[in-house]
Amino acid sequence: MSLDNIIDGRAIAKEVHTETEARVCALKAVGVKPSLIFIRVGEDPASRVYVGMKERSAMKLGIRSQTTVLPSDTPESQLLDLIKQFNDDEGVNGILVQAPLPPHIDETKIFSMVSPAKDVDGFHPINAGKLMLGEKGGFVPCTPAGVHELLIRSGVAIAGSQVVILGRGNIVGKPMAAILCQKESHANATVTICHSRTRDVVFHCRSADIIIAAMGASEFLKEDMVRPGATIIDVGVNRMEDPSQEKGYRLVGDVDFKAVQPIAGKITPNPGGVGPMTIAMLMRNTVLAAEQQVAKHK
Amino acid sequence: MSLDNIIDGRAIAKEVHTETEARVCALKAVGVKPSLIFIRVGEDPASRVYVGMKERSAMKLGIRSQTTVLPSDTPESQLLDLIKQFNDDEGVNGILVQAPLPPHIDETKIFSMVSPAKDVDGFHPINAGKLMLGEKGGFVPCTPAGVHELLIRSGVAIAGSQVVILGRGNIVGKPMAAILCQKESHANATVTICHSRTRDVVFHCRSADIIIAAMGASEFLKEDMVRPGATIIDVGVNRMEDPSQEKGYRLVGDVDFKAVQPIAGKITPNPGGVGPMTIAMLMRNTVLAAEQQVAKHK
Repeated sequence: MSLDNIIDGRAIAKEVHTETEARVCALKAVGVKPSLIFIRVGEDPASRVYVGMKERSAMKLGIRSQTTVLPSDTPESQLLDLIKQFNDDEGVNGILVQAPLPPHIDETKIFSMVSPAKDVDGFHPINAGKLMLGEKGGFVPCTPAGVHELLIRSGVAIAGSQVVILGRGNIVGKPMAAILCQKESHANATVTICHSRTRDVVFHCRSADIIIAAMGASEFLKEDMVRPGATIIDVGVNRMEDPSQEKGYRLVGDVDFKAVQPIAGKITPNPGGVGPMTIAMLMRNTVLAAEQQVAKHK
Repeated sequence: MSLDNIIDGRAIAKEVHTETEARVCALKAVGVKPSLIFIRVGEDPASRVYVGMKERSAMKLGIRSQTTVLPSDTPESQLLDLIKQFNDDEGVNGILVQAPLPPHIDETKIFSMVSPAKDVDGFHPINAGKLMLGEKGGFVPCTPAGVHELLIRSGVAIAGSQVVILGRGNIVGKPMAAILCQKESHANATVTICHSRTRDVVFHCRSADIIIAAMGASEFLKEDMVRPGATIIDVGVNRMEDPSQEKGYRLVGDVDFKAVQPIAGKITPNPGGVGPMTIAMLMRNTVLAAEQQVAKHK
């Protein structure tokens, strides 16, 4: 069985990192070392892993990073004060508050308190609005931005294509739709967002040229839901029970890769597809933030 | 031929106005008369008509309105100064800058300078972002908000339905999609945005339960593009040459009403459909702005 339809997210992320590193060097040449703040609240195991990966990536690229870990019972007001302090600190270019936050903290409120100019996660409403309206200069959320880069750099024809996005979350589904429907090259797609209340998801999927699965349902997308030749992007990270594993589970995507890969035109593996791109986009956003802040202070 | 499938926009707008008027009375009871500023630049004939209609509607409801007309060669900076003055004026609840603006003025910049709390048109990026993210408390653009009310008050089943929006503008198409795809009652639709680069618009239209036509193409939607029983909403206002008219043209919508009405489940006339609802939503947004500002100063 041929595997040459697999989109190598790690290789493409490496390309992006190389470009980002050159921009870091250019900033250093004018005396600026880009800096990124991570804030983590509590000890969610996945959050620890994600922040650790982002820290290592920043270090490799020459981006200064600093992580503040707060106990899970931290009052919301204390977290807000900390964000305000970093907002006001000219030595900080980007601020990332790792989700999920403990239930007593209002995530929406927290995200909207990060300075829009330092919002490298792209979760502030003003950045979401700029994305929706097609305005330049805002920050695009890292995962959908990463999927977009994957499609472009894999030579997938986006303009004029029919795209189905599975999932309408604020972190992936909605911004993904906003990116792909714009009147721009590498966009201009006809986008349908499917979700839990969609009546006939199979109908939509089977008419799609590109399917982006981001609804968090283990191996949901099967071969009979995919038009042969379609491009399949798997954003999902789900736990599936597996007694053969030491932890009792394994991580699987939203796509049944084994079943879909043989008929897909192009497909992302999982892991090794979207994940590395999310981190690459975070680094790129951080450098962009630093560049914009330097330009503003000139 | 039965005409009882026609959605009466004027009657529904009147219902909304009655509710708004009650809210105006409640505000007056605490000493607040809602006030709305119109700014018009130049003498675009359609803009004159639209602003005139909005002024009359405000007057009828007991909303104080004031219109500033600037010459078409007004520098952008002067318009910005004027907006700033109204932003800072506590006696002003809502500010509307009538589009289109002359070409030397950057509309995006102007809309983003209106205080988000007084942005009754809902064009500020932060209001667009709140809408996209499903956050409460922002202002929703008047035309898509009006279409939403028309659908709800006409008893059209939105949840679970397949909606096709024709047109991806920032004023109608994109915010309309954002409203209807949210995880909320009277939303939860599966939305597809079609546009000039859509490959097979007929395919999409024929599979839709609800079609919202907002792309500005005279009588584009014909009976062979519509599934019998579908709900059809016509947002278009286009000039069509007509030598029999004194002006040499007549106004037509994006829907070929005569052809589509007999097979539609429900359909808006044009005029008398969406137009009155746009104004009703503007009045409602103005009262909402006044209520929010009163609550904040308590």
